[in-house]
Amino acid sequence: MENKTVIRVRYKETDQMGVVYYGNYFTWFEVGRNEFFRNLNLECGELERKDVFLPVIEAGCEYINSAKFDDEVLIKTELVELKGVRFRLNYTIYRISDNTLIAEGFTRHAFVDSELKPINFRRRHPEAWRTLENLL
Amino acid sequence: MENKTVIRVRYKETDQMGVVYYGNYFTWFEVGRNEFFRNLNLECGELERKDVFLPVIEAGCEYINSAKFDDEVLIKTELVELKGVRFRLNYTIYRISDNTLIAEGFTRHAFVDSELKPINFRRRHPEAWRTLENLL
Amino acid sequence: MENKTVIRVRYKETDQMGVVYYGNYFTWFEVGRNEFFRNLNLECGELERKDVFLPVIEAGCEYINSAKFDDEVLIKTELVELKGVRFRLNYTIYRISDNTLIAEGFTRHAFVDSELKPINFRRRHPEAWRTLENLL
Amino acid sequence: MENKTVIRVRYKETDQMGVVYYGNYFTWFEVGRNEFFRNLNLECGELERKDVFLPVIEAGCEYINSAKFDDEVLIKTELVELKGVRFRLNYTIYRISDNTLIAEGFTRHAFVDSELKPINFRRRHPEAWRTLENLL
Repeated sequence: MENKTVIRVRYKETDQMGVVYYGNYFTWFEVGRNEFFRNLNLECGELERKDVFLPVIEAGCEYINSAKFDDEVLIKTELVELKGVRFRLNYTIYRISDNTLIAEGFTRHAFVDSELKPINFRRRHPEAWRTLENLL
Repeated sequence: MENKTVIRVRYKETDQMGVVYYGNYFTWFEVGRNEFFRNLNLECGELERKDVFLPVIEAGCEYINSAKFDDEVLIKTELVELKGVRFRLNYTIYRISDNTLIAEGFTRHAFVDSELKPINFRRRHPEAWRTLENLL
Repeated sequence: MENKTVIRVRYKETDQMGVVYYGNYFTWFEVGRNEFFRNLNLECGELERKDVFLPVIEAGCEYINSAKFDDEVLIKTELVELKGVRFRLNYTIYRISDNTLIAEGFTRHAFVDSELKPINFRRRHPEAWRTLENLL
Repeated sequence: MENKTVIRVRYKETDQMGVVYYGNYFTWFEVGRNEFFRNLNLECGELERKDVFLPVIEAGCEYINSAKFDDEVLIKTELVELKGVRFRLNYTIYRISDNTLIAEGFTRHAFVDSELKPINFRRRHPEAWRTLENLL
């Protein structure tokens, strides 16, 4: 299952090369991720109130074409790995006007509590776990 | 008393107009502010551990010249108002290479606790208060 | 005439106080501004291709309540001043869930060319000018 | 050869988890990179005036410990690959107070002109090329 989110490039997100600054794609991944969890009724805000945090332990991105100011871009988010204490999401970014592939990336996350100690999400929240597992 | 801090403009801080994005000056004000408090031995981090937070209640900036990538800029920070529950800092930003005035701005802050409730800083931390008062 | 835009607060936009960082409101003003011009068929990107840039010469914000992660916020943008070489927009930010006023701000802009030299927009682009004038 | 740069964590760079937002490490990599080139007398700004741009084509980061507000962090930057049209830098981030490893990352770059067309940097700028080659 893939989640699709659309955003519009902000002027703030460009740099003097006239394209989107490379670090800002990781913010877009976050936007896709939030939408991904919201659509499963697992809002990150809600998870945090249950003392579940999802810090990123690894992230990467390949930049294939440039996104520009005012472009509408599509963020596809997909769960591709799920273990007791970790998971991985893949992201694909497209420019909508001409369906051009802009970037591909991923984030790997741990399940931790507010002390940043790892927790076993499967045991702590078995129902939410199954919701995720069904996506694989 | 004025506090002086020097930073170098990051590529991230530019936009496609080739100059620093207007919203980023407020981050520079924050850098000047942190340095201002650190030099008084009132680090913001330390204050937060004592349950004192300094949220901004108003901010403004006039943009006079453009800062560019790789410029070294000087941030001058000055306390100009101090009341029981509020204070105001003024900031002046200069390009160092030619001493050009870049921007002038201010922030007004409340003293609050971690619940974001106003506190009377003068009563709660009289010593720190006097340190600030002596600057006026 | 008021333009209305809705955005959702990104995790990136929060800080360790648990609320949106004060400087990020200026990015939201920019989002409202872009939408404002787009709805008049005066996209900023299009204007830049015609060698018209709209740098901010002054900006300010009053922070009334805190926006938080995942909040949907409404940005209202309104043209309130228009002169030969300058204009001013006002912004009002609301949290949508409970219609709370979050912040009020403004930006003042010059009309300049790509060399950042002031231009008389009324003379250079009389039609676009009238579109703006009709909003006052 | 390794380049070392020190920065201090800004409040803006934290998020509501109380640590530095994962995407901001890529900005720190950029700070290290600029310093790396400056120390070789190859300032990025100077390169851009010679129509040489260095867009990122791939980036990644592993997050090992959390950086926090006001931490002084050390950014080590090292050239590890250099080809006709591409190069790779590795970055290591340490918290200075206790010498803790915070993160490890990399960026891969193309040499392009202002039209974003690839250029052969070795042929176009043989002297600058040798400066880089000598670091491997």
